Amino acid sequence: MKRLQDLGEFGLIARIERLAARAHAKTSRAVVLGMGDDAALLRTLPSEDLVVTSDAYVENVHFRWATQSASRIGRAALVANLSDLAAMGARPLGFLLSLAAPPTLSVSVVDAAVRGMLELAHKSACPLVGGNITRASETSFTITALGAVPRGRALVRSGAHVGDALFVSGPLGSAALALARAEASGARIRHRASPRLDLGRALCDLPGIGACIDISDGFSADLAHLLAASKVGAMFDASAIPCEKNFWRECARLGLDPKQILLAGGEDYELLFTVRGRFASAQVLSRRLGIAVYEVGRIIPKRSRRKSDLPKGWSHF
Amino acid sequence: MKRLQDLGEFGLIARIERLAARAHAKTSRAVVLGMGDDAALLRTLPSEDLVVTSDAYVENVHFRWATQSASRIGRAALVANLSDLAAMGARPLGFLLSLAAPPTLSVSVVDAAVRGMLELAHKSACPLVGGNITRASETSFTITALGAVPRGRALVRSGAHVGDALFVSGPLGSAALALARAEASGARIRHRASPRLDLGRALCDLPGIGACIDISDGFSADLAHLLAASKVGAMFDASAIPCEKNFWRECARLGLDPKQILLAGGEDYELLFTVRGRFASAQVLSRRLGIAVYEVGRIIPKRSRRKSDLPKGWSHF
Repeated sequence: MKRLQDLGEFGLIARIERLAARAHAKTSRAVVLGMGDDAALLRTLPSEDLVVTSDAYVENVHFRWATQSASRIGRAALVANLSDLAAMGARPLGFLLSLAAPPTLSVSVVDAAVRGMLELAHKSACPLVGGNITRASETSFTITALGAVPRGRALVRSGAHVGDALFVSGPLGSAALALARAEASGARIRHRASPRLDLGRALCDLPGIGACIDISDGFSADLAHLLAASKVGAMFDASAIPCEKNFWRECARLGLDPKQILLAGGEDYELLFTVRGRFASAQVLSRRLGIAVYEVGRIIPKRSRRKSDLPKGWSHF
Repeated sequence: MKRLQDLGEFGLIARIERLAARAHAKTSRAVVLGMGDDAALLRTLPSEDLVVTSDAYVENVHFRWATQSASRIGRAALVANLSDLAAMGARPLGFLLSLAAPPTLSVSVVDAAVRGMLELAHKSACPLVGGNITRASETSFTITALGAVPRGRALVRSGAHVGDALFVSGPLGSAALALARAEASGARIRHRASPRLDLGRALCDLPGIGACIDISDGFSADLAHLLAASKVGAMFDASAIPCEKNFWRECARLGLDPKQILLAGGEDYELLFTVRGRFASAQVLSRRLGIAVYEVGRIIPKRSRRKSDLPKGWSHF
């Protein structure tokens, strides 16, 4: 078995460059200069702001080699970052990969992880433009993703106003359910979340979008972030939150609390956003976007105590 | 002693945000939105390209807590990245910090490292705009630095031409000598390299600058990178490479090979660049820049075998 120490730092860089060159036959026009220099050069349009985010995916914290394929691990490391671009309404420009790994790690495992990552990168028109490689005692993929958004139009967490309708973009709890299912059966995790880049960009073009965040830590935690940034409160109907077919039956079969999985599962990578005005209706908004979205609640004042006003089944945050 | 696990992820983020707010009283006008959202928003001028680079600084690979102060460690993690911006001729826009650390690490150590980093960030007009925090078995600082350069004017590794004069921007070997000195005496490392941002930007504005790279891996290794990218060769005079006062005596005292320290020491963070035309003279260039630079060699064809043409003492690469 060939190990990273057999390749060396520059051997591994050359290998990743070759994989990337193959994956990105058509590189983005935003890339003036990709890998191989002291830094990458990118270009946004004069009418755009630059969006930049970074996230780490660490062995034994975020993943284990044994419980999922290397390809899925590489992909998942990029999903978190692209999802942050989606939440800002950005189009991807490119990403940097900072790879830390033990010298004894198998080259074929790294190959598979990088291939999984590059496959999603290609699909998302987000080429690998740089990064670095270092030795470490455990493997980690630290990614910085760059995107561009029409100037002054980025979707932010702080834009929610009292009266806004609260939406999510798709079923929640699937990632957590897949993890529990894999743990119960001893099989590998198969669920693959996708960043909602198209939706983010479409929302960015609409009037009346308030705040937006991607659901990475779980609905409850990320809603809390959005509300804190916007200095508002919310009420929501947990039963209105979409979930996959057979979700409740599967939770029961596995002895899981479905509400916990739905609201706190995490790694859903759906968007949570608020809307006011003529698009503040799931039917109107879904039709306009050509993408299904689900109304799950409403923005209320921060210290509202009007619990009695709430419809049955709605939780007050 | 307070540990990271006592603060939690969001407690530590809030703490770093406070430190950063204090450090960057005047944040860069390039920052539209800093920490606290899904991503940061930055703005370049329409006449600029974006420059982006990332580098990791890993415990037991790049540093040990015992051999230098936490403040110096935090600073050094940022130096490597800012030096890459300098090598491209960029003005800094901001940086992201991806911090991985064991939960048992002392909060005051992290504070000191972050303060050391932010002090250099402030001095370099490069505010902290985002990042992430994760648990890991060893500490690492993975930084992505962003900068801007006049469109199409970035200094790249591939711009050297046969006949260009080869320059370095300052004494080499000091970092390696300081490390050896600290190891010999058991004292902490005190040497602090600085990124040559002002020089990089000044070079960017001059006509006739060929290729540029920062010396992070050592003169020989980084010259090799520049030559490979430019598809040229070089000859240089090792005795023309500047070094600090008492360098040779100190090497002798410590039993070090001075040429090895000078050419392969690494972490110098000086710039190595080529020049043609009227500024291809150390005297003219230093006067024009108001910054001392040193001519150390010349660019020659890649497979040149004209060894007999070379002045005595010059090494053929």
